[in-house]
Amino acid sequence: MRALILGGGGMVGQKLARHIAANGLNGEQVDITLHDIAFPSTEITGATQIKGSIADAGTPETLAKTKPDVIFHLASIVSGEAEADFAKGWAINMHPTWALLEALRAEHEADPSYRPRVVFTSSIAVFGGPYPDKISDEFLSAPQTSYGAQKAICEMLISDFSRKGFIDGISIRLPTICVRPGKPNAAASSFFSGIIREPLNGQEAILPVADTTRHWHASPRSATGFLTHAATLDTDRLQNRRALNLPGVSCTVAEQIEALRDLVGNDVVKLIKHQPDPVIQKIVEGWPRNFAPERALALGFKAEGSFKEIIQVYLDDELKRPT
Amino acid sequence: MRALILGGGGMVGQKLARHIAANGLNGEQVDITLHDIAFPSTEITGATQIKGSIADAGTPETLAKTKPDVIFHLASIVSGEAEADFAKGWAINMHPTWALLEALRAEHEADPSYRPRVVFTSSIAVFGGPYPDKISDEFLSAPQTSYGAQKAICEMLISDFSRKGFIDGISIRLPTICVRPGKPNAAASSFFSGIIREPLNGQEAILPVADTTRHWHASPRSATGFLTHAATLDTDRLQNRRALNLPGVSCTVAEQIEALRDLVGNDVVKLIKHQPDPVIQKIVEGWPRNFAPERALALGFKAEGSFKEIIQVYLDDELKRPT
Repeated sequence: MRALILGGGGMVGQKLARHIAANGLNGEQVDITLHDIAFPSTEITGATQIKGSIADAGTPETLAKTKPDVIFHLASIVSGEAEADFAKGWAINMHPTWALLEALRAEHEADPSYRPRVVFTSSIAVFGGPYPDKISDEFLSAPQTSYGAQKAICEMLISDFSRKGFIDGISIRLPTICVRPGKPNAAASSFFSGIIREPLNGQEAILPVADTTRHWHASPRSATGFLTHAATLDTDRLQNRRALNLPGVSCTVAEQIEALRDLVGNDVVKLIKHQPDPVIQKIVEGWPRNFAPERALALGFKAEGSFKEIIQVYLDDELKRPT
Repeated sequence: MRALILGGGGMVGQKLARHIAANGLNGEQVDITLHDIAFPSTEITGATQIKGSIADAGTPETLAKTKPDVIFHLASIVSGEAEADFAKGWAINMHPTWALLEALRAEHEADPSYRPRVVFTSSIAVFGGPYPDKISDEFLSAPQTSYGAQKAICEMLISDFSRKGFIDGISIRLPTICVRPGKPNAAASSFFSGIIREPLNGQEAILPVADTTRHWHASPRSATGFLTHAATLDTDRLQNRRALNLPGVSCTVAEQIEALRDLVGNDVVKLIKHQPDPVIQKIVEGWPRNFAPERALALGFKAEGSFKEIIQVYLDDELKRPT
């Protein structure tokens, strides 16, 4: 079985590749190809790396010609960059998906038995307020960022190419993945990981929003689980609604901090400094806070049950430090 | 004031052009340009015709350079054709909208005071079942046709280009327009007009579905009203949700027929012959049946209050035969 991971150099792509290299998919061994503009220095045994941009002319066609059985499409620029550079956002986050789907359709038309599973990482950014208390599976997509609009459009394309039988696609709307290992990044959501990760590493962390801020989280381990489950699921069960809200943990920043205190004590928590940033506060206020992801739960997608479990995943998987 | 009507040769485009030529927009006289691949033989006084396809290379750019104040974007191939010819559907119903928006963005960037109103005729085909009893303003778009997916994607594009301030757009999801004058067409919805129009013209009409079939209708006169209202509305009131479900009349085919009987008597109704067509029945079963279009009503959009009124509009406007 052959898997192609677009955006395979990123944090989630790398974890997914390692998981599949070690465990296969559905009990089958997997030949893995990673595509991205950059990769970490340590290569993954059993995975081939291809360096380039998905937006390069001819790239989607060349990749489609290798006829992967499963394509994990994680490639995109982040929300902040897509908002700052409008043209680049659409050029990276939307048009290459169209080109890829058209290239896969051409492969399908040349060989009708070829109908790859395409797993697209969408985002809760497809939603825009005002929100109900819990976002149901039937709530509209009214994105309030270009990134969200690009994700929502890719979902629509994947659904329609699937409905016609050219591919067998599924779009999964990831919660904010937390606790991200490594360094802070430019994303407005970066602090959600930072206020846990930095204190656990003995460093100060800035909290730029009120601790009453509620948001929707899942761990990197859950992200891998979502992706492999989406790759192996019987898509007939989706009944032509191929974009799914995933399970996660809804909690306030205060609850995040309490969970950290519970696990590792007050000295660590003291390293979190509240320093309000009105710009970040305003962005985060526009984000979804809570979901009732009934369809995904019924389909067997699983996330953590509490933010304490999310921190524990970081301790186990990154710090190798069980409490 | 200059208005451009894309799809200006079609039934709705022509009625809109005549209305604007006679009444202006917001009290202002309007210079009208119609663009379409074909036009009826009778030209509209005060309107310039340009023949061509919106999908022709360079056409969106050339049209954008004329800097219309209002663009009514009604150009598309119909649902049945978009479903039968996948590539053509996307080539006509989606890509030219992207090209047009990019061309308008270029005009805006050259002259930031230029920010045209774009009124896009979307469709209730952006929805897919299962449906609630009444579709609320917050119900998801899960289209089950390529036409619906293309309309939904254009809505997303128009919303994002508007959010960024390049254009000032609004997408209106038209009910099935009924009673259409003229000949039956290839649309699966054609019979909704046919069972009223043909009998009123002394001809037999085929009813291909059960008379319990419920659907959502508005008259061509309402369509003109929707479009002119959308062109002159204060879009701040949309609060960044720029795709609207419009008002209409929800009724069963049996109720349509009763309304016809009430207005013109049983002899006319006898010309309707029930001849079930499982293909049409299946398509129509997938369509929305009823809406609670609260936002559009609050924004001042108006449709008929009953199917009897819809028939009366046909009698008044097309047959000049008041009952």
